[in-house]
Amino acid sequence: MSQQIKITLPDGSERKYEKGTNGLQIAASISEGLARNVLAAKVNGQVWDATRPIEEDSQLQLLTWNDGEGKNTFWHSSAHLLAEALEALYPGIKFGIGPPIETGFYYDVDFGDHTLDGSELEKIEQKMIELAREKNEYIRKAISKKDAIAYYQEKGDEYKLDLLEGLEDGSITFYEQGNFTDLCRGPHIPNTGFIKAVKLTNIAGAYWRGDENRKMLTRIYGVTFPKAKELQEYLTMLEEAKKRDHRKIGRELELFTFSEKVGQGLPLWLPKGTLLRERLVAFMKKAQDKSGYEQVTTPHIGHKALYETSGHYEKYGKDSFQPIATPHEGEEFLLKPMNCPHHCEIYKHKPRSYKDLPIRYAEFGTVYRYEQSGELHGLTRVRGFTQDDAHIFCRPEQVKEEFIKVIDLVLYVFKALGFEDYTAQVSLRDPENKQKYIGTDEAWEKAESAIIEAASEKGLETVTELGEAAFYGPKLDFMVKDALGRKWQLGTIQVDYNLPERFELEYIGSDNSKHRPVMIHRAPFGSLERFVAVLIEHCAGNFPLWLAPEQLIILPISEKFKEYAEQVKAQLDDAGISGSIDNRDEKIGRKIRDAEVKKVPFMLIVGEKEAAEGKLSVRKHGEGDLGSHTVDGFIQYFQGIIAESLSK
Amino acid sequence: MSQQIKITLPDGSERKYEKGTNGLQIAASISEGLARNVLAAKVNGQVWDATRPIEEDSQLQLLTWNDGEGKNTFWHSSAHLLAEALEALYPGIKFGIGPPIETGFYYDVDFGDHTLDGSELEKIEQKMIELAREKNEYIRKAISKKDAIAYYQEKGDEYKLDLLEGLEDGSITFYEQGNFTDLCRGPHIPNTGFIKAVKLTNIAGAYWRGDENRKMLTRIYGVTFPKAKELQEYLTMLEEAKKRDHRKIGRELELFTFSEKVGQGLPLWLPKGTLLRERLVAFMKKAQDKSGYEQVTTPHIGHKALYETSGHYEKYGKDSFQPIATPHEGEEFLLKPMNCPHHCEIYKHKPRSYKDLPIRYAEFGTVYRYEQSGELHGLTRVRGFTQDDAHIFCRPEQVKEEFIKVIDLVLYVFKALGFEDYTAQVSLRDPENKQKYIGTDEAWEKAESAIIEAASEKGLETVTELGEAAFYGPKLDFMVKDALGRKWQLGTIQVDYNLPERFELEYIGSDNSKHRPVMIHRAPFGSLERFVAVLIEHCAGNFPLWLAPEQLIILPISEKFKEYAEQVKAQLDDAGISGSIDNRDEKIGRKIRDAEVKKVPFMLIVGEKEAAEGKLSVRKHGEGDLGSHTVDGFIQYFQGIIAESLSK
Repeated sequence: MSQQIKITLPDGSERKYEKGTNGLQIAASISEGLARNVLAAKVNGQVWDATRPIEEDSQLQLLTWNDGEGKNTFWHSSAHLLAEALEALYPGIKFGIGPPIETGFYYDVDFGDHTLDGSELEKIEQKMIELAREKNEYIRKAISKKDAIAYYQEKGDEYKLDLLEGLEDGSITFYEQGNFTDLCRGPHIPNTGFIKAVKLTNIAGAYWRGDENRKMLTRIYGVTFPKAKELQEYLTMLEEAKKRDHRKIGRELELFTFSEKVGQGLPLWLPKGTLLRERLVAFMKKAQDKSGYEQVTTPHIGHKALYETSGHYEKYGKDSFQPIATPHEGEEFLLKPMNCPHHCEIYKHKPRSYKDLPIRYAEFGTVYRYEQSGELHGLTRVRGFTQDDAHIFCRPEQVKEEFIKVIDLVLYVFKALGFEDYTAQVSLRDPENKQKYIGTDEAWEKAESAIIEAASEKGLETVTELGEAAFYGPKLDFMVKDALGRKWQLGTIQVDYNLPERFELEYIGSDNSKHRPVMIHRAPFGSLERFVAVLIEHCAGNFPLWLAPEQLIILPISEKFKEYAEQVKAQLDDAGISGSIDNRDEKIGRKIRDAEVKKVPFMLIVGEKEAAEGKLSVRKHGEGDLGSHTVDGFIQYFQGIIAESLSK
Repeated sequence: MSQQIKITLPDGSERKYEKGTNGLQIAASISEGLARNVLAAKVNGQVWDATRPIEEDSQLQLLTWNDGEGKNTFWHSSAHLLAEALEALYPGIKFGIGPPIETGFYYDVDFGDHTLDGSELEKIEQKMIELAREKNEYIRKAISKKDAIAYYQEKGDEYKLDLLEGLEDGSITFYEQGNFTDLCRGPHIPNTGFIKAVKLTNIAGAYWRGDENRKMLTRIYGVTFPKAKELQEYLTMLEEAKKRDHRKIGRELELFTFSEKVGQGLPLWLPKGTLLRERLVAFMKKAQDKSGYEQVTTPHIGHKALYETSGHYEKYGKDSFQPIATPHEGEEFLLKPMNCPHHCEIYKHKPRSYKDLPIRYAEFGTVYRYEQSGELHGLTRVRGFTQDDAHIFCRPEQVKEEFIKVIDLVLYVFKALGFEDYTAQVSLRDPENKQKYIGTDEAWEKAESAIIEAASEKGLETVTELGEAAFYGPKLDFMVKDALGRKWQLGTIQVDYNLPERFELEYIGSDNSKHRPVMIHRAPFGSLERFVAVLIEHCAGNFPLWLAPEQLIILPISEKFKEYAEQVKAQLDDAGISGSIDNRDEKIGRKIRDAEVKKVPFMLIVGEKEAAEGKLSVRKHGEGDLGSHTVDGFIQYFQGIIAESLSK
């Protein structure tokens, strides 16, 4: 008599199946369509092959392309498919590792004497598609370490042998599809037939195990999709992303530049970029002012001892910019990687009472963190950046209220900057592993429920992750989707029990005895540099009007209307709107085209008719002619747009 | 027959005297009063004893207490008088050096086993006065090196012997007054009787020759005056300076603090200090905006190579913060001591045409320069400070116009901040030594006359100093007198031919060929930190209204009027005036006293009558009651004061 097991689905419904039924079969029992789309099965929290038999009562989630873990499995299987194609085309090559990444996958390959050329990629793609059409199953096989070693010794693949050294006998599995076998923990999709579209995107060099003393392998990057249409969409998105690349737009709009002589990863902000920065800073300062923050200013260096106290030196010291020696007195300073230690010292400069709390210290603090030159990328990965940093020192019972205020602030920022699509993640302790965290149980419970309640009161769409909290406190992160559907983490709110302890921060409570305040770190933009990069790519350089470094330009049709243009400019200046005049000796069509290229939001054309009537011909970037308006009328319209963007 | 010599006085008049006549005699020939006040004689540009015979036709300036060099001579002679008194009171002591300093003089003394105590100073002062009354002449004696050594060997004074080692035979002189003889180049005042008032101000330790491996001597500081009344005035000024000490006021008004853990000389700006800084910055930015400056933003570090190119590393590298190593890639960075190299790199980021010039890049750039801890002093001598820096890149023929604009800006700053007493110094090349300077003769002549003409067109009271220019260009400095009569150098405007050369800066001229721009460095505040210190001491913490970090405070007479206070605050907020409410449960008298201590410019008292009538009782700091006003009336009055301060 066959045994039955109970399967509980994510919606809580329960179904009975025969012991040994697999995820794919369960999917088929629900609907044929689901079965066609199942990539893997999450069984009791672990991702399995959808074809692996389930032997006991289990929680089951069927993973498809819409699940991050489903995509991951799909791309991991695609790496194996790439390897199979490569082995077919280049017999005798050896393989390193082939993992999925954020978008797609790669495989590191030792081609021996052959140097792979970009022109060969198409041939490999075709081979992959050909093999995919064979619908070969991914077959999981447990194998002894001895047999596994023998297999790779025969193949002469020293990389897989190197990997095997670190594995324990009894835990080793091979996966086989078609003519290719790989050392792999899995899981994989049911068969190669799921892979319908392939694009190999890049070739790069990569040292074996990331060690520059070992051999450099060829890393082939690729991305695959379950539908051909999705690849098309992806390639279109890549095209669009290229056009919106913040490095390209930054150069075109003259926002920032880099100089080898100053150093890589150290942006030089040009006048227009500085104006943009300053508008962002002024905007945030104003919002923070209203929320009871106080600005402080601290130096960009601190004694090494400061970071020993904070723990930053122990944690990051070796991998970051090295200490700065002094010519006398044997002192050592560090470039500050964080502003928090300085703010703790400001908190400490005088005794504090419970009545003084919360204290909210904000600083647009520029911090420096070393990154290897290969990791640097435009403004998103730099060696020096300015945080819109603040630290809230509060009593434990104030955490929830402070979280609500910070969430309000973050949402206000998103709205004003046109980020409408976002979710939040609440990161809590691992309840199985409480000893990993500092701070009392009571404090954690209080803070965790404060965050959850605050998020729920503000109606945030949240996911909760257990075990994702930092060792020093729970946190709330925002994930923002940009216009191209890419996700960016912006705006972290982090509770911290650690620094108040390390800096021995205190306040006198209403009970007249000493207490430790709780610290909350928060930075809605995060890094100004990275935020500007994301914003540029989100809006393709068409900044919200209030933020645009060049908000309008006055275009006289000819020399004759220069004087009227000056009059208009003076009137705009008086209203606090600054714009320039294009007085070049060019045709009006050329002036308009140039202003469009520079993405100037408004072009104000002035000629005979306008001068006679005291009006403007208004043209909006990307939209065209808005007709004739009085200067006052335009000012009102202009200010209305800004007021609307900046309203709560 | 006696020979005649021709003496030319500063006013150009010529007089004949017998050969060998001295300055004192010439003074007496002019007026008895002058003779009583002559401290030294400047003969052909060299300061001499007034009693030293003049043997040939000469230019002569008689130096009195009103001349810096006269004061210097007076204080140098006072150091000798101190030594005479000390030798009388402590026989057998040995002497190091005893020079005049900016205010007064000191003498370094080896007291052997005795440790000098502050309580002994009065006795020494009395002895000095007693010896001064003897009107002993200062007698100059040339002496051979051999005899000088014998003299000090007999006295057993190893310090003077050490000094003698460095001197050449034939150039050595002793000065003798009363019972004291000193190795000294002079010059000195005619006799000790000129010294009418003495104050020994401080005792400190000082290593012989500043070398910490040698013996520590006792340094006694003092100051003397030709009139008793002047000492009284000086002591009163010192008292007042102590009250105005920016470190004291900075603490009381909670503007800034220091933390040993962050590091000495690295100010932490508290919220009110940050507000003050930001007001200063906003003020300067607005003024610069109007003058055609563009803000840029650059990092606080740069590759070592950047400063090798600029020459800063060679010049300051060893004595400043040492290079910052990186964990990989062997790069070396420096904390930036100056912003100019970064701005040069921004200039270079694209080709420039003569039509683009002048380009004016401004940055509130924080720079770091190492100072020994003993040199640090509040905000006036720090290790990190923010410059209101800007660099103007212009064509040679634009120098004059740019100077005029910068002078306008500097004078506007002085006016808005209440510095009404200032002079300017123009520093030019040494015409005898042209090879010391870089840049062509033509360029120097053009720039020097541009500066002189600009200063004269702006009606500045200037002194011109030959040979005081930097090797890379002439400059204009402003000297500002504060409320206590102390002079501060603020606002340097410096022409630079060097950096454009080193960075190979270029522009395409109207002749279509390449030219080097001229660079002008300028910083009206200089360092924000030092400027704030000077400002605090100048206004004793009573900042101009527009700048005060706390401009007003609303004082409800009791809890009952809290609501009306909130209404008033909202109305002020709407008008862009921010103030706080003192809602403490304290008597109104106490609230007023506390606000006075905090130097809040306006106190707005609200009670029954005010609430009923919709008015305010206005009180001005340091002035008292200004009577009852409507809120609107007060707003108008308040804004009027600010508009007046900030008007050109």
